[in-house]
Amino acid sequence: MTRLSATPRSTLTRKKHRAETDREALYAVLDEGLVCHLGLVLNGSPVVLPTGYGRDGDTLYLHGSTGAASLRSAAGGIDVCVTVTLVDGIVYARSLNNHSMNYRSAVIHGRARQVDAPEAKMHGLRVLSEHLSPGSWEHARAVNAKEFASVSVIALDLTEASVKTRAGAPADEPEDIATGTAWAGVLPVHTGFGSPIPAGYVPAGVPVPAHVAERGTGPSGTGPATGSR
Amino acid sequence: MTRLSATPRSTLTRKKHRAETDREALYAVLDEGLVCHLGLVLNGSPVVLPTGYGRDGDTLYLHGSTGAASLRSAAGGIDVCVTVTLVDGIVYARSLNNHSMNYRSAVIHGRARQVDAPEAKMHGLRVLSEHLSPGSWEHARAVNAKEFASVSVIALDLTEASVKTRAGAPADEPEDIATGTAWAGVLPVHTGFGSPIPAGYVPAGVPVPAHVAERGTGPSGTGPATGSR
Repeated sequence: MTRLSATPRSTLTRKKHRAETDREALYAVLDEGLVCHLGLVLNGSPVVLPTGYGRDGDTLYLHGSTGAASLRSAAGGIDVCVTVTLVDGIVYARSLNNHSMNYRSAVIHGRARQVDAPEAKMHGLRVLSEHLSPGSWEHARAVNAKEFASVSVIALDLTEASVKTRAGAPADEPEDIATGTAWAGVLPVHTGFGSPIPAGYVPAGVPVPAHVAERGTGPSGTGPATGSR
Repeated sequence: MTRLSATPRSTLTRKKHRAETDREALYAVLDEGLVCHLGLVLNGSPVVLPTGYGRDGDTLYLHGSTGAASLRSAAGGIDVCVTVTLVDGIVYARSLNNHSMNYRSAVIHGRARQVDAPEAKMHGLRVLSEHLSPGSWEHARAVNAKEFASVSVIALDLTEASVKTRAGAPADEPEDIATGTAWAGVLPVHTGFGSPIPAGYVPAGVPVPAHVAERGTGPSGTGPATGSR
């Protein structure tokens, strides 16, 4: 597998044993997450905004209104940091100090670029759409010219990235394991989909299409709705 | 209810109708989330890191190892941005352009301060513990002097904050509502807890304590495990 890059800011200085170094681990976190947190510096202050995203190979796409200051700044070639975090469980240890969380997180650094060429921009929108709602690109009414003009697409290379994971049982101190009496273990955290709720203007009797109804019911690891992760 | 502050950076410029202006909405998002995303500027670049947190009144506590560069910086009085996002659903519209996500997010700006006074620091740790794992503070082995010294607690006032929410049905264009045929609606996203998994060193037959076993089984709105939100 391709190794992730190791620049100073993408090299973990703490809990190094939690670093994942292969690219597949990065893809897995990005493909399972629903939102990312986009960080940038606006007027000298850090700003962290949740937003949708999509991945195609080693490119991450973000989008937003052309009027959004954060997107305009990000597209202007300034440094951004994009983080995706999946929470997998609460770790109860015998000692308070060893309580923790099971999680997988990906942190990407880089300079985003605006995607202006119409074909490339449409491709970016498709990637974003397939991530948010797989199947909608074929099913829903296509983007028209006015809508296409009103949206901004930016791209970020997945060159400089790190993945951090904590999984499994608590890590208690030997003396707590030997003589402690407190309960220790993991309370899994699951994220999944509920039953689709049709909009009021969808006529009664219209079936929920398969790309919505069957989302997340596939084999484990195919999406955020996997029952246990 | 107390109104949230309205400084320029905490005033939404886009989708203003999604802004919540009362403090209870801020507390609700913070109290339900499990992780926040801490943004700060390190060596001129934005960095966004997932981390645990806890809230007591109008103070948000964060903590980490005294060796973590991000925490040291945050405690040094530099600007930080803390964002908590709850994803509630995928919004399928008849047009691709109106696809969206239902979510609640809180964004807090401010200068964090290190909490050094022992009593205040212990209080911060308790608040963090009660958020991560309610009940553990009484149940688990207390923090000893060495552990206490190795952890850093920082506090951030919830003075400058904004809350953004999208909820409910898709917002399609009138012509798509009138003549479209694509399915539209919301696929809810749920986050909840699974069955506790005891650590291998917990003797067989030891019951899972109530603060773990019953977490998230309370009335709706008491935690991240509420079945439908």
